[in-house]
Amino acid sequence: MNGAEALLRTLVGSGVDVCFANPGTSELQFVAALDRVPAMRAVLTLFEGVATGAADGYARIAGRPAATLLHLGPGLANGWANLHNARRARVPLVNVVGDHATYHQRFDTPLQSDLWGLARSASAWQRSSTRPEDVGADAAEAVAASYGPPGSIATLVVPADVSWGSGAAPAAPRPLAPVPMVPPETIESVAEVFCSGERVVLLVGGAALREHGLEAAARIAHATGAKLLGETFPAVHARGGGLPDVEKLGYYAETAMDQLSGTRHLVLAGARAPASFFAYPDKPSDLVGEGTTLHELAGPAHDVPAALDALADMLGADAPAPRSPSIRPPRPSGRINAESMAAAVGYTMPDGAIVVDESVTSGLSVPAATAGGPRHDWLSLTGGSIGQGLPAATGAAVAAPERRVLCLEADGSAMYTIQALWSQAREGLDVTTVVLVNQAYAILQFELARVGTSGDGDRARAMLDLRHPTLDVVALARGMGVPAARAQDAGELVSLLERSYSADGPMLIEARST
Amino acid sequence: MNGAEALLRTLVGSGVDVCFANPGTSELQFVAALDRVPAMRAVLTLFEGVATGAADGYARIAGRPAATLLHLGPGLANGWANLHNARRARVPLVNVVGDHATYHQRFDTPLQSDLWGLARSASAWQRSSTRPEDVGADAAEAVAASYGPPGSIATLVVPADVSWGSGAAPAAPRPLAPVPMVPPETIESVAEVFCSGERVVLLVGGAALREHGLEAAARIAHATGAKLLGETFPAVHARGGGLPDVEKLGYYAETAMDQLSGTRHLVLAGARAPASFFAYPDKPSDLVGEGTTLHELAGPAHDVPAALDALADMLGADAPAPRSPSIRPPRPSGRINAESMAAAVGYTMPDGAIVVDESVTSGLSVPAATAGGPRHDWLSLTGGSIGQGLPAATGAAVAAPERRVLCLEADGSAMYTIQALWSQAREGLDVTTVVLVNQAYAILQFELARVGTSGDGDRARAMLDLRHPTLDVVALARGMGVPAARAQDAGELVSLLERSYSADGPMLIEARST
Repeated sequence: MNGAEALLRTLVGSGVDVCFANPGTSELQFVAALDRVPAMRAVLTLFEGVATGAADGYARIAGRPAATLLHLGPGLANGWANLHNARRARVPLVNVVGDHATYHQRFDTPLQSDLWGLARSASAWQRSSTRPEDVGADAAEAVAASYGPPGSIATLVVPADVSWGSGAAPAAPRPLAPVPMVPPETIESVAEVFCSGERVVLLVGGAALREHGLEAAARIAHATGAKLLGETFPAVHARGGGLPDVEKLGYYAETAMDQLSGTRHLVLAGARAPASFFAYPDKPSDLVGEGTTLHELAGPAHDVPAALDALADMLGADAPAPRSPSIRPPRPSGRINAESMAAAVGYTMPDGAIVVDESVTSGLSVPAATAGGPRHDWLSLTGGSIGQGLPAATGAAVAAPERRVLCLEADGSAMYTIQALWSQAREGLDVTTVVLVNQAYAILQFELARVGTSGDGDRARAMLDLRHPTLDVVALARGMGVPAARAQDAGELVSLLERSYSADGPMLIEARST
Repeated sequence: MNGAEALLRTLVGSGVDVCFANPGTSELQFVAALDRVPAMRAVLTLFEGVATGAADGYARIAGRPAATLLHLGPGLANGWANLHNARRARVPLVNVVGDHATYHQRFDTPLQSDLWGLARSASAWQRSSTRPEDVGADAAEAVAASYGPPGSIATLVVPADVSWGSGAAPAAPRPLAPVPMVPPETIESVAEVFCSGERVVLLVGGAALREHGLEAAARIAHATGAKLLGETFPAVHARGGGLPDVEKLGYYAETAMDQLSGTRHLVLAGARAPASFFAYPDKPSDLVGEGTTLHELAGPAHDVPAALDALADMLGADAPAPRSPSIRPPRPSGRINAESMAAAVGYTMPDGAIVVDESVTSGLSVPAATAGGPRHDWLSLTGGSIGQGLPAATGAAVAAPERRVLCLEADGSAMYTIQALWSQAREGLDVTTVVLVNQAYAILQFELARVGTSGDGDRARAMLDLRHPTLDVVALARGMGVPAARAQDAGELVSLLERSYSADGPMLIEARST
């Protein structure tokens, strides 16, 4: 058996049976081995950033890693930005990168590059297999490493001669490292904080924003009067369906400081200490106020829901927290703007939807319009690197073929990895993409004022303006085989959303704000 | 003056007055400063790989660096693949990357990443400015460093507080390092090789494939009977217009070994020793035969044309070399295939064109069909990283607004950085893009057999197949504001090429092979 086949068999044996791929010559052994390992599903992408972003979205929903298949240093580089988002989402991801044959590298041929430097900058674990005999064990270790805890990027570099060389064999799955429990004394000490009578904010993140953790956190807040906040950009936020609603910490420092104002104790459960997303002149980066004491109940690598359960038990917080009322916005009509778009989404939201939100400023009203809707999961842009939405929606749809994925984009954000639409069409994935076309990098128009510039000149404004030429995202979608339509008003947006939910396969809806 | 303005003024003062940009919040100070430094032309791109590839194409034609403007680690990562191609083209390029404010980095906020590791893996020179007072000098040094020799990537990282901080001032241009001359004794020793009476191959690359070097190399070959070969993927190859034609070293090892067969002396002038692009089982990577002695007349960092002049003088090679006959292929008709597409390009080629070739297998016949055409420059995919063509065409058109750029693509290759079309429309650039739609990663179909796999199963073949769904590149172009049309046969392809050459601005022509 050659190295490529041993790799695929090891991955499948370890529970990794989906691979998002953009192969080149050095990865053709893996391509050929697909016919011998039918349990591995390979999803072709036209650009590597689609492959890595899809693996991120897949892992957020499936709870286990997908593999990628990337071509040498440039392929890894093209996938790097969405590996960054996946790293921030703390999902497991097995990143497979082909390399030149071991003996070929000394010739420094055109595609040779600092692949190892790239791998190190992108991954928590990286290895280059040196012999066919090692590939199986290396792959099994990569899968185990990807689980962490916390979940992380494991990059396995496979030289071409290791792929085609014989003498390889699949390796058995490696045991996963246990997820550490928070020690009882930490839970006791945090419990005292909640009993102090002073103002407490419980900031939850990571797994604490999934159903189980969220229920426990809400019970604690309800029983103690503490304020419950969620981290700004969680990997997965369970919402709707009567789950407790949780206010998110604001993106802008001013908002977050208002939310945290007067906090005596800030308890972190799977979330990081609040800091401004960007720095601004004469504004603080550290959002933990001077009079606030930080306490960490559980770090991102801990079993956060178990820690919340234990804390709730200790506090006697067993009364159910208030539920979000089940309420949808009324059917909107008239012009399309951020509010009517949000109402259209909330009015039509299907049960069990997965929302992938990369709409930046355009989607700001959607969370409020959907909190009272049916149960859904909300996936955020965890690492701030634009170009994650369409790929993550693709991967989420592969992970959950029985659920509808709703991807919220703006025209600026959609263009980074627009090639994802082709893979959605190819795989017939149930993804509805709504692109709110505002013809601008609108967030940068806001930020331009905030960074304290005098940048109101024509040339500066032109750099944030997408009007010349206007992007026709309907044409772009159709060009990649995705049915698409333009909503002229909010009523039409409702109809198109309903149509997309009732049909199989992807659809893109352009909503032009007027 | 703030750091951003000092940076822009220093760049302009050092001769860098074009910037290909995809800014974010941390780069908004530069955006704002554009209104105060009108000599800097900023070209907006929708994806960072377009910005870096455009800077590569610009430098190949302008002979001086453009700047980029990229957003933090993910922006640099998205631009990395085309920086790799630019590095292999040995062009000067000043890569400007914004970073979080210096004091902000310890908070490890979402967009924080291993930016420095990325910068090191992408650049020959890298620096992070730490104070506004330093930005001017750092920028001047970046420009000088980018010139090498040889030309290379200089990455300047500018934290946001260094951009907005005051006390900065522009710096004067730094003197450029002289391009080293080849010592006379080397030229003498190589001259003896040519006088040995044994079989000599002169392999030229880099600047030796531009007009002056090519003339000298051809005179040497003509006078001595040596065989003249050009490197496989040169940055710029001057062709047509009666220039000496030069056979290129083949991409496939078998082809190259045939071309080099029986060589007693292989003389390198600005080219690297021949090696196979990829490794293959049971085939050599090193293409220098056992009985061949290597001689280096000039390395890529030398003044290669001057070395060739000196060698020609020493050999008395002053008789003009034979010219390529001025001959165009006849007007093609009938079905579109690689041959009729090449004939259509050759039949219509405008004088002074810049050809950017990323057509991979689809364009294999075009060089022969254009060698006898009018004077043109041919830009190759130097680093093998697909996604360079459309961006490089964009940058070349910015560098030479009086010339027509002809970009040759296939459907697979065009999709990596298709966003470049929008920048072409926005800037009204005279770029004609021909996309030969073969609905496959055709090169990988060839390579699959060559890597010795048994990969003829349906699942392997599906991974190299772009038919499901078919890409409609006409729709994609129109969606980004570029006029586009589909050629149904070779005659129509001729008409559309002629139409594009007679109109201002970009046009895309889809040629579907049948």
